[in-house]
Amino acid sequence: LNVLVVLAHPERGSFNSALCEAAVAEVERLGHRAEVSDLYAMRFAAAGGRDDFAVRRDPDHFHYQSEQLAAAHAGTFVPAIAAEQDKLRRADILILQFPLWWGGPPAILKGWIDRVCAYGVTYADGTRFDAGLFRGRRAMLSVTTGGTPHRFSDAGGYGPIDKVLWPVQHLFLAYLGYEVVAPQVCYGAARLDPIERARYLDSFRQRTRNLLADLPPPPPVPTPHEIAELVGERDWTSKV
Amino acid sequence: LNVLVVLAHPERGSFNSALCEAAVAEVERLGHRAEVSDLYAMRFAAAGGRDDFAVRRDPDHFHYQSEQLAAAHAGTFVPAIAAEQDKLRRADILILQFPLWWGGPPAILKGWIDRVCAYGVTYADGTRFDAGLFRGRRAMLSVTTGGTPHRFSDAGGYGPIDKVLWPVQHLFLAYLGYEVVAPQVCYGAARLDPIERARYLDSFRQRTRNLLADLPPPPPVPTPHEIAELVGERDWTSKV
Repeated sequence: LNVLVVLAHPERGSFNSALCEAAVAEVERLGHRAEVSDLYAMRFAAAGGRDDFAVRRDPDHFHYQSEQLAAAHAGTFVPAIAAEQDKLRRADILILQFPLWWGGPPAILKGWIDRVCAYGVTYADGTRFDAGLFRGRRAMLSVTTGGTPHRFSDAGGYGPIDKVLWPVQHLFLAYLGYEVVAPQVCYGAARLDPIERARYLDSFRQRTRNLLADLPPPPPVPTPHEIAELVGERDWTSKV
Repeated sequence: LNVLVVLAHPERGSFNSALCEAAVAEVERLGHRAEVSDLYAMRFAAAGGRDDFAVRRDPDHFHYQSEQLAAAHAGTFVPAIAAEQDKLRRADILILQFPLWWGGPPAILKGWIDRVCAYGVTYADGTRFDAGLFRGRRAMLSVTTGGTPHRFSDAGGYGPIDKVLWPVQHLFLAYLGYEVVAPQVCYGAARLDPIERARYLDSFRQRTRNLLADLPPPPPVPTPHEIAELVGERDWTSKV
């Protein structure tokens, strides 16, 4: 199986990086393949927009999904985005590794989502949830938090972690068709002692093994041209 | 009163821009002051990290909140961030205007949140929710969606809009102490006819008037040094 880990932390010596490395090592130890998109190391540009495209469909008025659809068919995404789309398409398992900032992914990861997961490449009209193009694949969030477990409850003020992660887990991952497993959450990451860190790393290795278990290799994600045939011409033009 | 509108849309001719302009015109018509942070026009860099700081506290290991705290006290944020912090501190009312991408703000706006709303400047240990440093101020999200109102229900798959917006409304705005009013939501923005657009613009002008009504001018947001005195030295160092 192919595993893609997208890492969004500005410090290579961080616990987030250690978690990423632990997952990769575990994947390879079990004879599978891992790729990493270390967004800060790549200096991945976060803001989605005109810079996503080598060629513009409409130079006068920028409509994001129309440009994405045109680029999907013409192959005119800039290389930084096309490369990530290729990684995503060949991954059977997707892990997003990030510190929770203001209740969500850091901007650099949100930008990866906004830019890479383009209309016409990763979804189209009517291809959502059970009909998502990534069905048969698995995804997991692995997040570190500043807050304690108590904070992530109704009484603690932030609300349960699944409520906090709803937009990423449901409106992004499940929307694309992924089977979304429970998130791996390291609470109070800045204040962990070495024993707690080791315990979290062990638990993450176990979660990684579980991700790989009993997953039949899924069929390839349809190409942009196959997607167009799948959803029909009319649906496409109505959106753009 | 001072109103800050943060706009996150890549196209100046978009409906998001029109909404932003309508709010600004209404604020000024009523004799108040409006500022706009048009993030795409500013080419605001989205990824929070080392580039936020003119001087680094620890060049070997990057810990975001520690660097933010040091920069807060030394005044060493880069100008692009310091300028936004000044705008935010003098705003009595904050409006975030954006298209909902994957259930959340576009990365460029998430980056504004991550970078501008720094530890030691906009919050510190124990200054959350009712004790937030921005209490007495009001905030509203104004979002456009691709999905119809039905989609934003449990039956429609995305869940109610307040559930989708929970991280931004609650873990960000309410956390800082803002009174968060109901979001202004333009559903199915790409498919609106001129009459529907006009109706949404009118409704947004009304919401803007409501934001300005009956808000006593709040006391200034504490300075970083006042915040340090407020929460005490011990609390500060425990976090960093």
